[in-house]
Amino acid sequence: MRRTIATVSLSGTLPEKLEAIAAARFDGIELFENDFVNYKGSAAEVRSMVADLGLTIDLYQPFRDFEGMPEAQYQRSLERAERKFDLMQELDVSMVLCCSNTSPLVIDDPELAAAQLHELATRAAARNLRVGFEALAWGRKTNLYGQAWEIVRRADHPHLGLILDSFHTLSLKDDPAGIADIPGHKIFFLQMADAPLLSMDVLQWARHYRSFPGQGQFDMATFLEQVLLAGYTGPLSLEIFNDVFRETPNRRIAVDAMRSLLYLESQVRQSLENSAPRDDTREKQRQRVLQRIELYSPPALPDIAGLAYIEFAADEASGEAFGKLLLQLGFRRAGKHRSKAVVLYRQGDVNLIVNAQPNSFARRRFDTHGLSVCAIAVRTTDPERAVGRATAMQSKRYDGPVGPSEQQVPAVVSPGGSLVSFVSSALGPNGLYEADFILDDEEDGAPDAGLEHIDHVALGLAVDQLDTWILFSRAVLGLEPGESLELADPFGLVQSRGVANADRSMRLVLNVSPGQRTRTARTVAAGGGVTVHHIALSSHDIFDSVARLRASGTRFVPISPNYYDDLLTRVDIDPGLLAKMRSAGVLFDRSPAGDYLHIYTESINDGLFFEIVQRVNAYDGYGAANAPARMAAQAQKQGQEVGNG
Amino acid sequence: MRRTIATVSLSGTLPEKLEAIAAARFDGIELFENDFVNYKGSAAEVRSMVADLGLTIDLYQPFRDFEGMPEAQYQRSLERAERKFDLMQELDVSMVLCCSNTSPLVIDDPELAAAQLHELATRAAARNLRVGFEALAWGRKTNLYGQAWEIVRRADHPHLGLILDSFHTLSLKDDPAGIADIPGHKIFFLQMADAPLLSMDVLQWARHYRSFPGQGQFDMATFLEQVLLAGYTGPLSLEIFNDVFRETPNRRIAVDAMRSLLYLESQVRQSLENSAPRDDTREKQRQRVLQRIELYSPPALPDIAGLAYIEFAADEASGEAFGKLLLQLGFRRAGKHRSKAVVLYRQGDVNLIVNAQPNSFARRRFDTHGLSVCAIAVRTTDPERAVGRATAMQSKRYDGPVGPSEQQVPAVVSPGGSLVSFVSSALGPNGLYEADFILDDEEDGAPDAGLEHIDHVALGLAVDQLDTWILFSRAVLGLEPGESLELADPFGLVQSRGVANADRSMRLVLNVSPGQRTRTARTVAAGGGVTVHHIALSSHDIFDSVARLRASGTRFVPISPNYYDDLLTRVDIDPGLLAKMRSAGVLFDRSPAGDYLHIYTESINDGLFFEIVQRVNAYDGYGAANAPARMAAQAQKQGQEVGNG
Repeated sequence: MRRTIATVSLSGTLPEKLEAIAAARFDGIELFENDFVNYKGSAAEVRSMVADLGLTIDLYQPFRDFEGMPEAQYQRSLERAERKFDLMQELDVSMVLCCSNTSPLVIDDPELAAAQLHELATRAAARNLRVGFEALAWGRKTNLYGQAWEIVRRADHPHLGLILDSFHTLSLKDDPAGIADIPGHKIFFLQMADAPLLSMDVLQWARHYRSFPGQGQFDMATFLEQVLLAGYTGPLSLEIFNDVFRETPNRRIAVDAMRSLLYLESQVRQSLENSAPRDDTREKQRQRVLQRIELYSPPALPDIAGLAYIEFAADEASGEAFGKLLLQLGFRRAGKHRSKAVVLYRQGDVNLIVNAQPNSFARRRFDTHGLSVCAIAVRTTDPERAVGRATAMQSKRYDGPVGPSEQQVPAVVSPGGSLVSFVSSALGPNGLYEADFILDDEEDGAPDAGLEHIDHVALGLAVDQLDTWILFSRAVLGLEPGESLELADPFGLVQSRGVANADRSMRLVLNVSPGQRTRTARTVAAGGGVTVHHIALSSHDIFDSVARLRASGTRFVPISPNYYDDLLTRVDIDPGLLAKMRSAGVLFDRSPAGDYLHIYTESINDGLFFEIVQRVNAYDGYGAANAPARMAAQAQKQGQEVGNG
Repeated sequence: MRRTIATVSLSGTLPEKLEAIAAARFDGIELFENDFVNYKGSAAEVRSMVADLGLTIDLYQPFRDFEGMPEAQYQRSLERAERKFDLMQELDVSMVLCCSNTSPLVIDDPELAAAQLHELATRAAARNLRVGFEALAWGRKTNLYGQAWEIVRRADHPHLGLILDSFHTLSLKDDPAGIADIPGHKIFFLQMADAPLLSMDVLQWARHYRSFPGQGQFDMATFLEQVLLAGYTGPLSLEIFNDVFRETPNRRIAVDAMRSLLYLESQVRQSLENSAPRDDTREKQRQRVLQRIELYSPPALPDIAGLAYIEFAADEASGEAFGKLLLQLGFRRAGKHRSKAVVLYRQGDVNLIVNAQPNSFARRRFDTHGLSVCAIAVRTTDPERAVGRATAMQSKRYDGPVGPSEQQVPAVVSPGGSLVSFVSSALGPNGLYEADFILDDEEDGAPDAGLEHIDHVALGLAVDQLDTWILFSRAVLGLEPGESLELADPFGLVQSRGVANADRSMRLVLNVSPGQRTRTARTVAAGGGVTVHHIALSSHDIFDSVARLRASGTRFVPISPNYYDDLLTRVDIDPGLLAKMRSAGVLFDRSPAGDYLHIYTESINDGLFFEIVQRVNAYDGYGAANAPARMAAQAQKQGQEVGNG
């Protein structure tokens, strides 16, 4: 399909927006009127700037408050339209978006609306222009696509058609199923906007919180499917009003935009291919879509079977210090890389790699920060397919230097710059390390701490990275987002959202601090917008693990005795267990599915820390209820340093 | 009245919160449970920490989901309550807030709720504790104060009373008039929360957007009046859940909190003193309030008659450069200060003072920035009363050094650190300058630019300074806020809100950029959180002024020709006027009350700029609709420097 995007969706001046749109390989744009009005250049200049970038202007928008007006206003609006038509011809754009009337003057008379739109279309036709009519969710008399279609149908003019926007339909909980029955050639244009489900005034919701498909909570795929079944063959477009996008560097947002369309198309293609024919008409429509409409069909999502390793970039000093800490945490120094200054630490199924190789990817990107996570490696049956999927979704592939008889581990660059690497499951738990490392033959004798798997990796993200990461997680890795939670840090709220694959062998937690003063915000700022916040390792006996860790000198964030007194009033908990938790400093959370016991280590240089977790039964969260206890304890400890005044 | 505040209203650790609360001279606190639960110290330690600061704990809160529960949960909750009562006794707090049930298990039976609360109160009474019952706006069965009162009335226990919170009543548009009929001794506690009027889910609204009285849009004074008329004599408290307050240094927020109560009390006192007796009962109530309840009665608000001058702090070089610019703008160098390196520039009624005196207040606070506004001086009949009002509202007085036979200009420190000075109207237009300056006898012959008054001063504020400034403007200066508008900068939205006095002789515009990349955000960051964004000067013939200014070399932000083409389609405007505007580069806005013609100068070092304005008839805004045109033009000009990628 042709893919287009409205200029209002991106930050920057008009030339900057166009360059970002072209760089992300869109075919065309919707020109948002204000972007033209406030641009210093003429229509002819914009026209050639667009053409020079290989783009077209597919839509001029919006034209407001036209239909159903009293005669005087109607005549004036026709005049206004003629001026816009002049401009459209100068710009070389053939369609204008006319959105349903929000004026208090509007008359509730579909026949009148149809007659006036017929006249508008007649005038447009005289210049070979077309008018698309769209129901705004807050239109005063027309706010559903069914009403807009009824008006377009009555107006019955070949230069007048319908424009659909998923937001306007789904925000009102209107059923998109009826769209499939509209003649496809009468749908002139399609805007796909997602959004989080919010209980607020629809206009505010629309103006500030729309997002790209896959970033919100609407069922985008079903909506698009209806439009395609109707026979629509026009552009797939994005018109996103989002406060954060307005503030974000536009090159990244443009890539997100393209990724969102590719992801959506792939979802719809899959759904159409797999759907059972409902009846003959629908089956004919379905076949027609599959034959006539080019929908994106990237490699399938990777089947991820857990995290293979986490790789840290470190300079020599911090690498050594970190290594000592890992030994304290029950890891053993399992080997040294064959060709690089890279050390492997292992415990249970957990592999942590510390890369201090000068001039490595890791060091080049990250060594300014002392110690940072530079790669998260996942196990998958087909690494090349995984990379193919990622690059199809506009991620960049990265291939590191490979020494003789070492394994090639293909990787992609995730938003923010660190790598997601793909390790073949066929290598088994040791294959990769046997190939690349000189492994120590024996255990060093010191007992481990019973830490078995990487339960989750929590990332700290700048506000403008959250939607980027949600989409990356879904479209590239197949991780689906859970609930969005708010955690009260003493210096501001932190938003937290888990993303995980279906069998929960890979979980990430995405943490965002809108304010500047929380610990999370400081960590994110130090990490340049994306950073690993903490790493959670699982134990099947957290008390045993904690005892061993304390014995080896590991320090944990101290939890207030008041926490346990309060827990007793909140949860029906075995007194013996409570006593153990109190004594060990272990936190507790309960959901209907199960329990979660966990504890946090003190952090390294006010940055990264570890969490030890034990999931009981099918508990599926991350102990968010206890995060404020941790953050308060961390703040009390660091109160002197940070200050507050 | 006793004044208290909930610990949840402030950022920081518990000790930091308590210190800020004590420093702002509150009498006591509401202890928010999580602040205790997550604090490392014991109840006894908190008790003595509070006492050492001269505070008391007036309320422990909240106790949730108690009333109207099935037997099993009810029995469990009684157990839970006993544990909380233990804790309250250790903390030395005698009242707990029990908020109405939000559990899906709650039974809709006021009689049952009353019986259960009676039992809770009986248990509390056994320890000489009291229970206050509050209707949450999102309570499942009880969400209005009338319902809560009905349950308390039925329960009929001396240790059970009602807790009122203005937010819960006013957010649901419930009428507070009925409160005056509740027996005052049965109202146990009062929380005053304001909020902006938002169309959103009430729980989200409550959890994120409450504000201190005077910062939002609810009628706080009428609400409080009803409670006082009822005979309530308990504390006046603040329990404010606000995302921004959570991120703001707590010392400032605590001062805002205290100021909001003092302001509210003064409003209510005035209202009670001036109110005509409605009937005998109400008149008796009114007299009782005025006799028994100590309400704050600060000096009256100043009567402001325009801006006397604006003072800039400058180092020598930037002072000289700025002086040249002012001459270009049609100002004349009117004199030099008798004792300081301070120069006066005048045009029409506009006085601009450039202070390059080493070691002055101005230089000490501001000279790192090259050129900054350090004081805004207003004319008022009684400067000492104005300062008295300000200090009564917790602003700090500032007295500068005064030389022999110079005028004393009393001043107060505004939020962010610059001064608001008060010049006696009795001095006339020249008195102050004749006293303090060696004035040049004659005009220098150069014609001015026809600039007559300071129309408004636009401030750029950090996000966390907006509510602070709204309250300061109202409580200290008597400026009332207008509509809140959103302006689209190419790099993010900017919020803009005017505050003005009744006769509009003083207008400020408060601009806030939530994102970091707008021009406003960069200016604010450079200015340390509060800065003068631009200064608008009025002309009665803007075209003549612009012609003269252009002739003298003043450069204006260029406006796109497209703006004028578009204006023609939007507004019914005289073609001659449009042509003049296009040629002069003047922008246009229209409201039902009148028109606004304006133009912006280029800025000084990417910072301060001037606006020339002409108001036609009773236009009362600030041309916000045109701000995007300006911001786009500024971004296009600086596009190369700023970059976007």
